[in-house]
Amino acid sequence: MILIKIGGGKKINLDYICEDIKTLIDQGEKVVLVHGASVIRDEIAKKMGMPTRTITSPSGINSVYSDKDAIDIFLMTYSGLVNKKIVAKLQQFGVNAVGLSGIDGQLWKGKRKTAVYSNDGTKTKLITNNMTGKVIEINVNLINLLLDNKYLPVVCPPALSEENEIINTDNDWAVAVMAGALKIEKMVVLFEASGLLKKFGNESSLIKTVDKNKLDEYFTYTQGRMKKKLLGAKEAFRQGLKKMYWSDGRIKNPIINALKGTCTIIS
Amino acid sequence: MILIKIGGGKKINLDYICEDIKTLIDQGEKVVLVHGASVIRDEIAKKMGMPTRTITSPSGINSVYSDKDAIDIFLMTYSGLVNKKIVAKLQQFGVNAVGLSGIDGQLWKGKRKTAVYSNDGTKTKLITNNMTGKVIEINVNLINLLLDNKYLPVVCPPALSEENEIINTDNDWAVAVMAGALKIEKMVVLFEASGLLKKFGNESSLIKTVDKNKLDEYFTYTQGRMKKKLLGAKEAFRQGLKKMYWSDGRIKNPIINALKGTCTIIS
Repeated sequence: MILIKIGGGKKINLDYICEDIKTLIDQGEKVVLVHGASVIRDEIAKKMGMPTRTITSPSGINSVYSDKDAIDIFLMTYSGLVNKKIVAKLQQFGVNAVGLSGIDGQLWKGKRKTAVYSNDGTKTKLITNNMTGKVIEINVNLINLLLDNKYLPVVCPPALSEENEIINTDNDWAVAVMAGALKIEKMVVLFEASGLLKKFGNESSLIKTVDKNKLDEYFTYTQGRMKKKLLGAKEAFRQGLKKMYWSDGRIKNPIINALKGTCTIIS
Repeated sequence: MILIKIGGGKKINLDYICEDIKTLIDQGEKVVLVHGASVIRDEIAKKMGMPTRTITSPSGINSVYSDKDAIDIFLMTYSGLVNKKIVAKLQQFGVNAVGLSGIDGQLWKGKRKTAVYSNDGTKTKLITNNMTGKVIEINVNLINLLLDNKYLPVVCPPALSEENEIINTDNDWAVAVMAGALKIEKMVVLFEASGLLKKFGNESSLIKTVDKNKLDEYFTYTQGRMKKKLLGAKEAFRQGLKKMYWSDGRIKNPIINALKGTCTIIS
């Protein structure tokens, strides 16, 4: 079974990705897809006059401020617009996809953080209306039920709290927990770069191999979202993942070529 | 198996509906839910500066003009915002719901109308970029797979065309085809009125029983959306439905009371 994670950037080429997924499925492979939608979410949020706001934790990690309005926009863009467009695209390529959010069938269950701290550089503020949490449990049965009946699950946030509230959740962390629960050995992460770069924006500084036990060393090279990807990767390996491919979602054969090694391989 | 259709009005009380569904499920009943989201769709469309437009067919039936932007708003509001909120609400009532659009698993397959005519009162115009169609086929296996594994399917438009394009579709018609495909005998339709009214807006003019063979006579009493509900009802009975309950989605025990007869019963 292969877990594929698609980033939320707009340059990601869905046709190329769907083409590769069809090839993998024709070869008898089981595939689970998880996707983001951050760029489209930010665009729609702006159009609706409720731009995405971020908060920075005292330890310096950025996350989206998720009040009830932000959760609505999350539902519209992740589980609505982007999830269904990916499902329709896969159908066009002959793959019988079924889109699910973490809410459906309690697929992603998390613990809500009832209080988070935000640091704006000068002072630390307590925020209590933030609907976020970390995924801790996966409904493996629902995924296997779909896979065993030849459906490809296309999964996205948000998740459900233990009290069944809708909560925003870090996608890279959720994917790591999912990889562990599904006993995934190979995971392909597709984004808008050729892999993990030593110098941000410089594609020729691609790091070809990374030792999974030395992931901490790479925090110095990475910026923004990449830090979360590293945290997710650490957790995925802690949960039993064998190999992770960080690869370019913009180019032809993004998955097939990644599995052949033209990307960053973490193992 | 009971098929429940919830209208897209804002006065519909979801808590009351979920409470009744939980009771039915605890009694061993299988339930499939289909919902609308027209009012919220119109609100979001307006907020995004792309208000919902309607076209009137030469025979006088109104429908939503569904170009690509309108389809995006459809995806956001039906399959995103409203579908997932209903799923989360059911989870809060202890019902393990899974939300699906007609796109997922090719659940609702329809024939796209590549050309439709619009009549603005003075002239008739040909429209070719309208992404709409009528549902003709249901993936019964996916619904049964979920039901057999104790999941409650929560279904909404849009549908998928034979060419796997996303198409807007008449919900009442789709529900009728679904009732036929699933061999449903009882169907409860919940909206913002106590049932079929002889006088629009006058709740005391409730028609208690309707002969399914005389549905045509009621077109004179009905306005707007109700005409489509009558067309849907005719098709549902043609496909084998035995009893249809048109009932008030705003009051306590909307489904339990409907099944006891405090509504309009068509049979």
